[in-house]
Amino acid sequence: MKPLSKNACKDLKKLQQKKFRKLKKQVVVEGYRTVEQVINNGLRPIEVYIKQGNSHKDFPFLEDVRVDYYDVTPQQMKSICDTEHPQDIACLFPTKSKAVTKHDFILYLDGISDPGNLGTIIRTAVAVGVSGILLSEDSCELLSPKVIRSSLGTVFSVPVEIGSPDKLLSLSGTKIGAVLEDSIDIRDMEIPKTNIVLVIGSEAHGIRDEIIKHLDHKVRLPQTDNIESLNAAIAASLFMYKLKGLI
Amino acid sequence: MKPLSKNACKDLKKLQQKKFRKLKKQVVVEGYRTVEQVINNGLRPIEVYIKQGNSHKDFPFLEDVRVDYYDVTPQQMKSICDTEHPQDIACLFPTKSKAVTKHDFILYLDGISDPGNLGTIIRTAVAVGVSGILLSEDSCELLSPKVIRSSLGTVFSVPVEIGSPDKLLSLSGTKIGAVLEDSIDIRDMEIPKTNIVLVIGSEAHGIRDEIIKHLDHKVRLPQTDNIESLNAAIAASLFMYKLKGLI
Repeated sequence: MKPLSKNACKDLKKLQQKKFRKLKKQVVVEGYRTVEQVINNGLRPIEVYIKQGNSHKDFPFLEDVRVDYYDVTPQQMKSICDTEHPQDIACLFPTKSKAVTKHDFILYLDGISDPGNLGTIIRTAVAVGVSGILLSEDSCELLSPKVIRSSLGTVFSVPVEIGSPDKLLSLSGTKIGAVLEDSIDIRDMEIPKTNIVLVIGSEAHGIRDEIIKHLDHKVRLPQTDNIESLNAAIAASLFMYKLKGLI
Repeated sequence: MKPLSKNACKDLKKLQQKKFRKLKKQVVVEGYRTVEQVINNGLRPIEVYIKQGNSHKDFPFLEDVRVDYYDVTPQQMKSICDTEHPQDIACLFPTKSKAVTKHDFILYLDGISDPGNLGTIIRTAVAVGVSGILLSEDSCELLSPKVIRSSLGTVFSVPVEIGSPDKLLSLSGTKIGAVLEDSIDIRDMEIPKTNIVLVIGSEAHGIRDEIIKHLDHKVRLPQTDNIESLNAAIAASLFMYKLKGLI
């Protein structure tokens, strides 16, 4: 393992800013479970950073990873990572996502703005096996450290693309949107066996009007009157499980 | 509206620390939607803080609230609130939760450590209408600002108590636990009509062994092999909806 130079550390720290991630097409991924998931999904890190006092043998998922390893001080780890108390490992990955090629079950996210929600939705999407995710252009950044963390690294393992409402409307599947008003209880809907496009709207405003009018079905989840609405990631997950026939 | 004195502001700022919340039995709740939900659920604030330039008329849910109103500077608002960019309203509330008296559907949370997860789980629990929630003693603090925010203020509207594993075992309902191994697919389980105790384990370790051995049913959610596990709040929400017959 080599020490990490001051300049290299400075460059990595810059990747905490969106503009530098876009420019360099790289992101620092931190934490045991998240790095493990990304590597197990077949992505190869560019470099590995291990906190002083640890060995690469502490991370069994690195066994076949032949890249440069850096021995970093706790201060350096803190400086290149996004969380306040980073764990003992971080890796540099390319910010590449897979293209959407299959359309059995597409998830369209219309303006999700919270990175924690986006990551959590992606984690469930991978769990149910969606064929692809389309994100509206005004959604939060896909490959930010917080989304990667909330997705537990699964964001690299599912096809995701930025998609305009036009792209959505060009899809041939049955378009089912989560809408609170003028909608039917999801339990009362006959669910298509395949070729589904599930549309989830933003936390604050739901699905935008220009998309709502093109939906084939507007569905809602039953709930008591005590509460305004469910969290967007919870609602999205319930719809995905239901429409996939997994619950 | 009165100005907020330096000393009063200092005292409110202290409530960002758990020990002072415990001591004073008070918490500052911030944000339009969250404060609205708490007040609509019948809780009365002790004091109201409104950022300079706003009027109490901007907050229709305050119409019948006759308590002291304070006109606070942006700096004061930032100092008494937990988020980095607080909104224009905050209120001081007593940290009182309702006692669990009905047992049709109890949710037992065994060591949930993330305040965001806890709040989100409570929000769904209110949506499905659970009769009460029991939190193990090592769970994160119930009435912290982050839990209140993630619950969208619903944490005040559902009966919640701290409950030991002994308390759980003394309940008469059918104990159903979310367990990844040696468990059955939730779709294969015959669901009792009432008197259910749903047990959800901690994010990192699941349900502790001393509880697992007393479960009547161990259930899991189906998922593809691509992923380690679902987020705890997502899993809890899927089980609640399913066991309540709402999906």
